[in-house]
Amino acid sequence: MKMDNSPARGTRDLLPATVAVRDHVLARITEVYHRYGYQRIETPAIENIERLTGGQGGENEKLIYKILRRGLTELPDSLDELADLGLRFDLTVPLTRFYGNNHAALPVPFRSFQFGPVWRAEKPQKDRYRQFNQCDIDLIGEESVLAEAELIEATTDALAAAGLPGTTVRLSDRRFLSALAEGAGVAPEAQGSFFITLDKLDKIGWDGVRKELTERAGFTAAQVDGVQTAITALQGLDPAKLTDQLTDAVPNLAENVAEDLVTTTTALAELATTRELGWEFDPTLVRGMGYYTGQIFEISHPGTSASVAGGGRYDKLIGRSLGKDVPACGFSIGFERIVNLLDNAPRTDAVAVLHEADVTPAEVLAVARRLRAEGRQVTTIKRRGKFGTQLGRLEEWGYTSFVHVRSGDVADERGLGSRESS
Amino acid sequence: MKMDNSPARGTRDLLPATVAVRDHVLARITEVYHRYGYQRIETPAIENIERLTGGQGGENEKLIYKILRRGLTELPDSLDELADLGLRFDLTVPLTRFYGNNHAALPVPFRSFQFGPVWRAEKPQKDRYRQFNQCDIDLIGEESVLAEAELIEATTDALAAAGLPGTTVRLSDRRFLSALAEGAGVAPEAQGSFFITLDKLDKIGWDGVRKELTERAGFTAAQVDGVQTAITALQGLDPAKLTDQLTDAVPNLAENVAEDLVTTTTALAELATTRELGWEFDPTLVRGMGYYTGQIFEISHPGTSASVAGGGRYDKLIGRSLGKDVPACGFSIGFERIVNLLDNAPRTDAVAVLHEADVTPAEVLAVARRLRAEGRQVTTIKRRGKFGTQLGRLEEWGYTSFVHVRSGDVADERGLGSRESS
Repeated sequence: MKMDNSPARGTRDLLPATVAVRDHVLARITEVYHRYGYQRIETPAIENIERLTGGQGGENEKLIYKILRRGLTELPDSLDELADLGLRFDLTVPLTRFYGNNHAALPVPFRSFQFGPVWRAEKPQKDRYRQFNQCDIDLIGEESVLAEAELIEATTDALAAAGLPGTTVRLSDRRFLSALAEGAGVAPEAQGSFFITLDKLDKIGWDGVRKELTERAGFTAAQVDGVQTAITALQGLDPAKLTDQLTDAVPNLAENVAEDLVTTTTALAELATTRELGWEFDPTLVRGMGYYTGQIFEISHPGTSASVAGGGRYDKLIGRSLGKDVPACGFSIGFERIVNLLDNAPRTDAVAVLHEADVTPAEVLAVARRLRAEGRQVTTIKRRGKFGTQLGRLEEWGYTSFVHVRSGDVADERGLGSRESS
Repeated sequence: MKMDNSPARGTRDLLPATVAVRDHVLARITEVYHRYGYQRIETPAIENIERLTGGQGGENEKLIYKILRRGLTELPDSLDELADLGLRFDLTVPLTRFYGNNHAALPVPFRSFQFGPVWRAEKPQKDRYRQFNQCDIDLIGEESVLAEAELIEATTDALAAAGLPGTTVRLSDRRFLSALAEGAGVAPEAQGSFFITLDKLDKIGWDGVRKELTERAGFTAAQVDGVQTAITALQGLDPAKLTDQLTDAVPNLAENVAEDLVTTTTALAELATTRELGWEFDPTLVRGMGYYTGQIFEISHPGTSASVAGGGRYDKLIGRSLGKDVPACGFSIGFERIVNLLDNAPRTDAVAVLHEADVTPAEVLAVARRLRAEGRQVTTIKRRGKFGTQLGRLEEWGYTSFVHVRSGDVADERGLGSRESS
C-alpha cells in the first residue's frame, strides 16, 4: 500500500543540502557566542499548560499545540480538562522557568544561549512553518546597558560570521516611547494599545496610525499629532547630538534614559570603527512583546526588508517566575530568515569508492578506510548501469572524485567532470 | 508570585556543563559519520497520528503524546476525534515517511544521519526521561551485507571518537533465529512471541524462558529444548569455523544466511586488526522490533551492562510507505546512555574581564574585544563584594584567568588559583 508521505500540514522535511547550510550557519553563530561567554542550555519542548498560558506569550498563546492528557478513558466534562501540557511557542517563557528552577547553580550574571524548535499553529504560509527554530542569547543579572552593548556586539559579530556582514542596528527604548506618549497626553494604561498601533507605522503610515488610534482606540487627533511631531523631529538625527535632540523632542524624558541611549550608541559608534556596521536611533521602533522595559533593538540587512534579529531589556519578566526581579536583556536571531538569505555550506571533498559487484565487502571497506584515514569523506557505491551515466550521477550528488575498485585491482583516484576543472 | 519552576513531569532542564558534554560527544560522532558519507536530515517532531499508530512502532505506540485538534469549540462525540497529530516516539517511523516523500531527490544508496528528540509517555525512572535524543544512521538501497559491515565500522569508530574505544560487537541474524525456531518445530506464525520471550533470556535465564514458553505461549518442552541445545552449541564458537558450526547446529539454515554471517564477521575480524574492538556471534541476540528481516547487532562496552548501540536490517519496512520494497539497514547509538558514561567536554580557556562599576561600557567592551580577537572565550563581570571571594567564585564557574579593569587602568591578565597551578 502506498501512503501519503507528506509531513504534517505546515511542517517540512529538511534534506541534506538544506541541513548542511543550517548546520554551517549555526556552527558559526555558536562559535561567536561561545567567545562571548554565552553557554548553551536546553529546556524540554513540552511545558505544563499553565506555564504556557500565563500571559507572557501575548498573541502566541492563541497558537499553542496542546497535548492530550494520557490515559483518558472517557471524555471529560469540559474542553479545558483535555490538555495538561503544550509545545513551547518561544524560548523566552521556558528560559524564565529555567532560571527560576536553576538560578542557584548558575553564574552571576548568567549568559544563556538557546537554539531549538518552537511550535505555533499558525496559518501555513510561504517560508513560514508551524515548527521552526529560534536562536536566542540572554544576559541575566546585568542591570547596566553594558548588557545591551554586549548583546548587540555579539549578535552583529555572529551574523557577520554566519555570512551577513554589513548589518544596521536600529535602537530605541520603551521608556522613551512611554515618555513620548505621556508627553502627548496618552494615559499610562492606554500606552499598550498605542504602541501596538505605532508598531504598524511602516505598514500603514501615519494616516493609518492616526485613523486607527482616533477611530478605534479613542485617541484625540492632537495626541497623535504630538507624537508624530516628536518622532519626525527625531528621525535621521545627528548621533553626536543625541542627548540634546532627545531632550528637545521629548522634554519629559528622564535623564538616565537619555544617558543610557547615549552610552549604548557611543559603544556602537566605537564598534563601527572596526566593523562593517551601521546604526541609528529609530524612534518608531516598538517591538511587539509587552514585557520589554528598557532599550529595544532590531538588526536590518540589505538582503531583506524584515529584520534579521531583535531584542531588548525585560527587567520584570523573571520576577514572575522567581518571585523577585532580576534585570535581563535578550537578543534573538531570526534563524529561519537568515538561512534563507544564505547559501554558504562549505563544499566538501567527497570521494566515491565505486566497486564492482564481485569485490568482497572486506576489500571495499579497506579501500574506503585508507582514504578516510586521510580525513576525507568517503562513500562506497556499487557499479551499475553505464559507466558515464553513473559518473554523471555521482557528480550531481556532489562527489568530487572517485576510485574504481575491481576484484584485485584498485584504480587511481580520478576527479569528476566539471568539478575537476572548475 | 513565586511559581513552581520544575519542568514538566518526566522531563529535565539541561545546564551548561551537561550541554557541553553532549555537544562534544555529538560533534565527535557527527565528524565520523560525515567521513562515512552519512548526511544529516531532519523531520518534524510532530507527525500525523495515523502515521504514528500504523503498527511500525510496536509497544511504543502505547506511549504517544497526542496533540489536541486546534479550534475545538465543543467536545467531540468520541475520544478518537480529539487528536490529529502526535509527537514522534522514534526516528525510524519518520525516516520511512521521509524516504517515501523525498526519495526522488536523494542519492542511491542513501546514507541518512539523524539526531533529535523523541517523546514517550513512559513512567519516569532514574536516568529515563520522557523526552530524550536518538542518534541513528541508516543506509537505504544497499542489498548486500556491505551495508551491515559499514554500519558497524562507522558506529564503532564514532563511539571510539566520542570516548568509548574497546567496544564489542554482538551479531546475529533474524533469518538464523527463524531457521532455529523452525528446526525446533515452531510454526512461522508463532515465531514472533517466541522471539519476544527469547529476548528476555539474559534476564530470566533458560528456566524462565522454558516456563514462559510452555506455560503461557503453548510451546512444548521439546521445542524449547531443541532451541536451547542449538543455541548452547553456538555460544562462544570459534570464529574461524563459523560456517561449519552454524550448519551443524541449525541444519536447515539457508546457505546465503550462513555466507552473509561469514562475510560480516570476516570484515569485522579484518577491522579488529587495526582497532581496539571485539566481536562475537551471539545466537541469543533478538532485538525488540518486529521489523528486522536480516542481520541484527548490538554493541557492548565494559562501562555498562546495557548495550550502547543496536541495529539491523529491515528490508520490508520502507515498502510500507513507498509502495515497493527497498533494502535498508540501520544503527542507533544510545546517545543518552553514552553521555552518562562520559565526562569529557574539553576544558575551555575562559577569561573574565572583571571591571569596576565606574568603567564605561565602551572601555569594558574594548578590553574584551581585544582578548576575543585572540580567539579566546571572554566574559565581562562587574567587580562586587570582597575581591578574594569573587575570584573564588570565578574559579568555581570555570574561569581560568581574569583581567582587572579600573577606570583608565587595565591590569595584566592573571591566572585563577588552583587552575593556574594544575
